[in-house]
Amino acid sequence: MRLDETARGVFVIAPTPFTDTGALDEASTDRMVDGFLAAGASGLTILGIMGEAPKLDGAEALAFTARVLKRVAGRVPVIVGVSSPGFASMKALAAGAMDAGAAGVMIAPPAGLRGDDAVVGYIAQAAAVVGDAPYVLQDFPQATGTFMSVEMIRRMAEDPRLVMLKAEDWPGLDKLSALRRLTAEGRMRRISILGGNGGQFLPEELHRGADGIMTGYAFPEMLVQVCRLMAAGDRAAAHDAFDPHLPLIRTELQPGLGLAVRKYVLQRRGFIASAALRAPGPKLSAETQAEVEFLLERLGRGERG
Amino acid sequence: MRLDETARGVFVIAPTPFTDTGALDEASTDRMVDGFLAAGASGLTILGIMGEAPKLDGAEALAFTARVLKRVAGRVPVIVGVSSPGFASMKALAAGAMDAGAAGVMIAPPAGLRGDDAVVGYIAQAAAVVGDAPYVLQDFPQATGTFMSVEMIRRMAEDPRLVMLKAEDWPGLDKLSALRRLTAEGRMRRISILGGNGGQFLPEELHRGADGIMTGYAFPEMLVQVCRLMAAGDRAAAHDAFDPHLPLIRTELQPGLGLAVRKYVLQRRGFIASAALRAPGPKLSAETQAEVEFLLERLGRGERG
Amino acid sequence: MRLDETARGVFVIAPTPFTDTGALDEASTDRMVDGFLAAGASGLTILGIMGEAPKLDGAEALAFTARVLKRVAGRVPVIVGVSSPGFASMKALAAGAMDAGAAGVMIAPPAGLRGDDAVVGYIAQAAAVVGDAPYVLQDFPQATGTFMSVEMIRRMAEDPRLVMLKAEDWPGLDKLSALRRLTAEGRMRRISILGGNGGQFLPEELHRGADGIMTGYAFPEMLVQVCRLMAAGDRAAAHDAFDPHLPLIRTELQPGLGLAVRKYVLQRRGFIASAALRAPGPKLSAETQAEVEFLLERLGRGERG
Amino acid sequence: MRLDETARGVFVIAPTPFTDTGALDEASTDRMVDGFLAAGASGLTILGIMGEAPKLDGAEALAFTARVLKRVAGRVPVIVGVSSPGFASMKALAAGAMDAGAAGVMIAPPAGLRGDDAVVGYIAQAAAVVGDAPYVLQDFPQATGTFMSVEMIRRMAEDPRLVMLKAEDWPGLDKLSALRRLTAEGRMRRISILGGNGGQFLPEELHRGADGIMTGYAFPEMLVQVCRLMAAGDRAAAHDAFDPHLPLIRTELQPGLGLAVRKYVLQRRGFIASAALRAPGPKLSAETQAEVEFLLERLGRGERG
Repeated sequence: MRLDETARGVFVIAPTPFTDTGALDEASTDRMVDGFLAAGASGLTILGIMGEAPKLDGAEALAFTARVLKRVAGRVPVIVGVSSPGFASMKALAAGAMDAGAAGVMIAPPAGLRGDDAVVGYIAQAAAVVGDAPYVLQDFPQATGTFMSVEMIRRMAEDPRLVMLKAEDWPGLDKLSALRRLTAEGRMRRISILGGNGGQFLPEELHRGADGIMTGYAFPEMLVQVCRLMAAGDRAAAHDAFDPHLPLIRTELQPGLGLAVRKYVLQRRGFIASAALRAPGPKLSAETQAEVEFLLERLGRGERG
Repeated sequence: MRLDETARGVFVIAPTPFTDTGALDEASTDRMVDGFLAAGASGLTILGIMGEAPKLDGAEALAFTARVLKRVAGRVPVIVGVSSPGFASMKALAAGAMDAGAAGVMIAPPAGLRGDDAVVGYIAQAAAVVGDAPYVLQDFPQATGTFMSVEMIRRMAEDPRLVMLKAEDWPGLDKLSALRRLTAEGRMRRISILGGNGGQFLPEELHRGADGIMTGYAFPEMLVQVCRLMAAGDRAAAHDAFDPHLPLIRTELQPGLGLAVRKYVLQRRGFIASAALRAPGPKLSAETQAEVEFLLERLGRGERG
Repeated sequence: MRLDETARGVFVIAPTPFTDTGALDEASTDRMVDGFLAAGASGLTILGIMGEAPKLDGAEALAFTARVLKRVAGRVPVIVGVSSPGFASMKALAAGAMDAGAAGVMIAPPAGLRGDDAVVGYIAQAAAVVGDAPYVLQDFPQATGTFMSVEMIRRMAEDPRLVMLKAEDWPGLDKLSALRRLTAEGRMRRISILGGNGGQFLPEELHRGADGIMTGYAFPEMLVQVCRLMAAGDRAAAHDAFDPHLPLIRTELQPGLGLAVRKYVLQRRGFIASAALRAPGPKLSAETQAEVEFLLERLGRGERG
Repeated sequence: MRLDETARGVFVIAPTPFTDTGALDEASTDRMVDGFLAAGASGLTILGIMGEAPKLDGAEALAFTARVLKRVAGRVPVIVGVSSPGFASMKALAAGAMDAGAAGVMIAPPAGLRGDDAVVGYIAQAAAVVGDAPYVLQDFPQATGTFMSVEMIRRMAEDPRLVMLKAEDWPGLDKLSALRRLTAEGRMRRISILGGNGGQFLPEELHRGADGIMTGYAFPEMLVQVCRLMAAGDRAAAHDAFDPHLPLIRTELQPGLGLAVRKYVLQRRGFIASAALRAPGPKLSAETQAEVEFLLERLGRGERG
């Protein structure tokens, strides 16, 4: 299974489950995979920024990839984040992941590139490095510090192996519209565009032409439902399904703290055994835990209503 | 009326109304002031980051301040943002504002200060510059690039003229708790703490011990209601009042675009005649306008329901 | 006298002289102007980043401009920095300066512009704002945070009023060569290019095709001499004249501290009465003063030798 | 041999030699080690920022470390940079390096830490992670984005395993003086302080109390000579030895380009076989190569003189 431009739906950004002592937790990996697929995920993405990838060494990254791919067993495509300071590591991970059955890889430009051409050039180099793998371009300037304009993305999309954009610039909705407009006008190849940003603009992203979303929000079944309702043309119902989750989405989006919130919720839901991040990483205060519990309770009430 | 540590409630961050051609709009200034007071504002803050202060020259800043103060006519305290690259300008604006009847001034540390002591030292210098005015310390590292720790704020609060903290670090809730804990333990003078950040964590901020909020969200009456419900101990009702606004709050929080959204809504509500920002500034796309309209309609439905 | 593409030589970035209490020092302004012209300056630039422009209000900026222009009395062109957060202030200062006899204005893009097109668009807007004034584009990403590629500069240079580039990207020599190559190939209009960066690469900049330099290094007569020697084809002599100054240039280039060093040297040389910067600003430690004195003494020895 | 507070002299920051195709070049590693020791190095530092450490995987880092240590064979202490996004990798590399005979490790705080206490806390955590290894604290905010004040360094130096500071803040001379003053006043433990920053302030650093320098400037024998002359009290001779190298030091200091210049010079001098950086990395233009050759020729002339 190779990723292509027709990909759509909810690609769940999977965290990397660790034990309380920081070891890779294989049992939780399996359970988490099962949970995301049961929630309706159209695909999985691993070793992204929220996957604590820089804290894994090369062997661990490949071992985790293999474990996920084995458990998924071809049911959905799996995308592997391969961003790395050096192309040698990027190449090793991309080759290993594709050999093990990944559907594609994800690349984000690093910080410090100077000007549009430098960014476009970097991605072209990285595309060569990952061999013949289809790839996702991650547009996430809040984390990478590197902006990519509509015109830059159009240029990069001339490479047929760039099959998907993870669109999480902020603000990013007008950019999404502009990209779709280029395609409608025949000036840009149609690629898959998935939103991101923790899902905080999911209904709007779909309304603007996104094919789905790639995020790790801890209730992927809601994301699936919103995609379904928007596809069915029921925008009001989509917002009605979405809005009750916005307080928790907002809480998960806090920079530096969000992944700890997300893992806490996934642990509470039984997806993973430990909410631990690898050191160095934040821990939730008792007050924050209580607030998350309060929001979960409100969500439960809403869902039962 | 001088601002002091007992200040509480909703201090509305007022934008600076311009005509479509960029002139100060005095009629809208009056109307906006009336609207905010009718909504239940406990105070107003002008010439903050969202007041486009750096785009006004010194004479305009004083003229706008005078106009607001005249219209408020002592009904609520007015705080004037005086942050400036030079102390000479800061001094002139602070003196002029206090002479005209302002209740206090607001100061944010600039970018580029190196280390805790440099920040604390800067604020001490600025406090000397603003003469005997009570002042609000703005803690907004997303905009200023300058972090202030709990310990730094504790030290700065030894100055009795620092009467209020505008707490909008992100994440900032544990910091708010830590500050209140210091006061409870007798290790920090009690000052007024108002939340910020567009209101996106208002219920949590109040639960953590904030005395209210200082933000420019375009529906201040909801902020007032949430403060009232939390003060009455009805946390669930506060969240019920808050949650329907979160989609619009999220839309107003988009960096670089948020003020244009806010002014659009204030214009739609009749507070100001033009949604124009002074150049250079963003304009709302037709798509974004339609999304805001959609959210406004949903809000209206919710309020009528 | 209007600035045009044929400008060459040493344009001295003049600081703004203040008294020890922070007032504009008119007598020092006159003396400094005389000193720079006696040193062989081909032009002056005022109210740049090193001119503490953001610490002046609009009236002061115009008063200082008028004083400089009166003293220069048409002997050399004077360029006035007009960068400002708002176009209204930029317009007022540009109009006032041109009315008073300035030869042109200087514009730098602000921080926070996203992507090449946003930068090019900003400069086009600013060019409209400054009316019919010839303008210098300042390329100084270390200070502005905004990168401009060769291609961007080529596009911007299609505007005939853009007559000069202040080229102080770092590293910037290959960029300078690339710009000159474009012109040699007939693909870019020839504009004046002056180097910058405190003069630390002056011989190389001239070798790469710069027409001179715009910097405020406190010994402009050396800069003039190096330009003369390079124009005469005596590269080795140019380096021989340049190298002894590099220790002091390096000391003046220290971020945040450099202007204080520069004003200290200008005071020591009798150009200005006080080395004071407007608050907030750094002061030289006794150790740094002693080091500067040591370097000045070595320079003196070298010059006498 | 374990690093301690008495370390002094020139610790050469060694690059990682690669072949033209990006493989570790073992023969060049040996030759380079011999060259640096012949130049009078008191120690070596490997896998620093200039060692392209993030482009090596864990196994390569350990292999390179072992090769260097074997070649050094105990003649001088070797420090190994172990900074890493995750503590697991840091621990593995530190343990492997110390087992193989390293004298100590070097740690820099990462970007994104918020406030003095967060930085001090991070270093305390890292110190625990590296076990019982003596460590060097790298103070290099231009690269890490993290400032460390005099007071922070004083606090961190309470840990007896922190034996050395690599002091390369910019500007940093007053900070160096302030640290030495604290020690003179009995308020801070005396640690070894080595300057950095490409050597551009070496005479001043020594004058301010540094015990030497840790940098990778391609002519370490000059650094050794300057240290010797300053130790002998001959400040003028030290500057005379230093000044002719400043043009090349300046050229090596260019951000993003400097390492390519440095490797070019080391190749020209016969220390390494290839000037190649691992991808992605810059290449020297023909013009830059010619400029470096010109500077080398001038240096040669000066040295013969």
